[in-house]
Amino acid sequence: MVPARDAMSRAPSRLDEFGLIERYFAPLAADAPGAFGLTDDAAIVASAPGEQVVVTTDAMVAGVHFPVDDPPDQIARKLLRVNLSDLAAMGALPRGYTLAVALPYDLDEDWVSRFASGLATDQSEFNVSLLGGDTVATPGPVTLSLTALGVVQDQTVLRRNGARPGDDVYVSGTIGDAMLGLALIQGRIDIEAEADRNWLVDRFRLPDPRIALGRSLPGRASAAADISDGLVADLGHVCTASGCSAVVELEAVPLSAATERVVRNRQDFHHSLLSGGDDYELVFAVPRAMRDDIAQISRQVGIRLTRVGRFVEAGPLGPGVAVFGSDGNRIETGHGGYTHFGERPQD
Amino acid sequence: MVPARDAMSRAPSRLDEFGLIERYFAPLAADAPGAFGLTDDAAIVASAPGEQVVVTTDAMVAGVHFPVDDPPDQIARKLLRVNLSDLAAMGALPRGYTLAVALPYDLDEDWVSRFASGLATDQSEFNVSLLGGDTVATPGPVTLSLTALGVVQDQTVLRRNGARPGDDVYVSGTIGDAMLGLALIQGRIDIEAEADRNWLVDRFRLPDPRIALGRSLPGRASAAADISDGLVADLGHVCTASGCSAVVELEAVPLSAATERVVRNRQDFHHSLLSGGDDYELVFAVPRAMRDDIAQISRQVGIRLTRVGRFVEAGPLGPGVAVFGSDGNRIETGHGGYTHFGERPQD
Repeated sequence: MVPARDAMSRAPSRLDEFGLIERYFAPLAADAPGAFGLTDDAAIVASAPGEQVVVTTDAMVAGVHFPVDDPPDQIARKLLRVNLSDLAAMGALPRGYTLAVALPYDLDEDWVSRFASGLATDQSEFNVSLLGGDTVATPGPVTLSLTALGVVQDQTVLRRNGARPGDDVYVSGTIGDAMLGLALIQGRIDIEAEADRNWLVDRFRLPDPRIALGRSLPGRASAAADISDGLVADLGHVCTASGCSAVVELEAVPLSAATERVVRNRQDFHHSLLSGGDDYELVFAVPRAMRDDIAQISRQVGIRLTRVGRFVEAGPLGPGVAVFGSDGNRIETGHGGYTHFGERPQD
Repeated sequence: MVPARDAMSRAPSRLDEFGLIERYFAPLAADAPGAFGLTDDAAIVASAPGEQVVVTTDAMVAGVHFPVDDPPDQIARKLLRVNLSDLAAMGALPRGYTLAVALPYDLDEDWVSRFASGLATDQSEFNVSLLGGDTVATPGPVTLSLTALGVVQDQTVLRRNGARPGDDVYVSGTIGDAMLGLALIQGRIDIEAEADRNWLVDRFRLPDPRIALGRSLPGRASAAADISDGLVADLGHVCTASGCSAVVELEAVPLSAATERVVRNRQDFHHSLLSGGDDYELVFAVPRAMRDDIAQISRQVGIRLTRVGRFVEAGPLGPGVAVFGSDGNRIETGHGGYTHFGERPQD
């Protein structure tokens, strides 16, 4: 498409679409035969007989989802990873992605170069290739949209709607690190130990999509979601889709050593970690009979998998999530939480 | 993902992501079982055994690709159609799409409602469904990215790289209408007849992806592309991919009645129509032995298919496109054209 603006004034742009594609994006498509070197109108997603293609799209805007002066390579990697995390939650194997980038007219070409280099790094890490996309100019902020494509074996896709009362609630990794990482970036908290600071900021900037875990869960887990909006919110989505509720024990929620040290000084932070987004861990439902399988998967994929609660029948107000402290009292989880519980259900 | 800005100031937004999805976007996913009502992390693209999934992504920015006050339903339909046109050029059957929309904080909900209604109209027209996406806020202009997904039978995908010297150059429909439509919208030209004005503006705003035609071409055409950047530019892409050149006869290029009337008064416009984008017709290469097949396809799909030139060996300067007038002189096509020809090759 010819930009309408081009037709009005053909001011030379510093960033020429075809030049950018050839220099920075076409090399990212070199390993995918179906991408045709980005020279065609569309690309073929590689899939074998018996596989189905799974698709997800996530967008990020500079100044909204990341600070405008964040390193471009890390922005690129996070953009790719949050999408791969969605594939992981469905039990899919990533195959490739398309990318739409809207770039400000005065953006430095170096920004694009570093952005592409971040993508190259993670393409190797996750064995995916660029399959296509679009590069356009914008008078607004950098606006990015990535569509990730993966495959599942027929009928092994992992949904959100399969949790049943009695199933355990599991989470992978640790919860709340990314929230503290963002708070550090924004100067809202201070942490003395540099190693802790760096580690927490990394957890925000460079989430680790749980692909191997997601691929192990079909047949074992009854439902799954990735934690992008916060444990309470995303577990709430599983509850809504499954038509049941969930009870979470605050003390059971796994924290990293760095986050433990923050919480030790700031007890008021503890339960708010359950509403913090961007961890990109998986929260999933597991029938009790599968507990041993989950322990074995944890060893196989090398990721801590922790039982933090269980699913229960929905109350009269419908599906929801309730968090209880060690004193047995219900904790108000605020933003992202559901408040459909009156009192703690009995064991 | 929790927007970083949200964590700083939780000012109530007029457009709540989940509310918008539930009200306007989930209904667009109702007919696609694999979209799971937009409640899961990703969607399944419906495909049958022996089919491969084809993907393409195009982005549009308000004020760049369309005037900010354009009717939202038409913006939505054009966004979908330009992507379906890419699928058509590959010979693919559209199945669904994902959508990333970045919306200004102060955008009226009515805009979103009309945008979604445009999508609903064209979903019925082209038998596709929304499969997923993302809705985010932006301090910049409306920024839209759509990823269209279709299927081809194994090994029937239509590429740009198959044209051979001696093949005919064909185009579908008429050329240059959208360029005049845009010029009308921008007040750069005036046309007396209201019917002509409306028709040309419609050709710009509501292109007709040539899906049935594209589906008929594998096995007959040797290469194809859609005309988004202009006939000379997109035919040039076919030439580059195929390693040959093309010769086009200006007088053979099919014009609509409305465009004929403009050209009658403005002869200087005639050849510039070949550089005008947004027609979203197909340009394709056809071995001479297939001429009868193409005539038959034209009758079957009800679209005018016109032979406008032929492919030739690339000259010493490499692949390119040359346009010749009725006087046999070569015409300078300017923007989008290639200038790798010295003189007209002999028949």
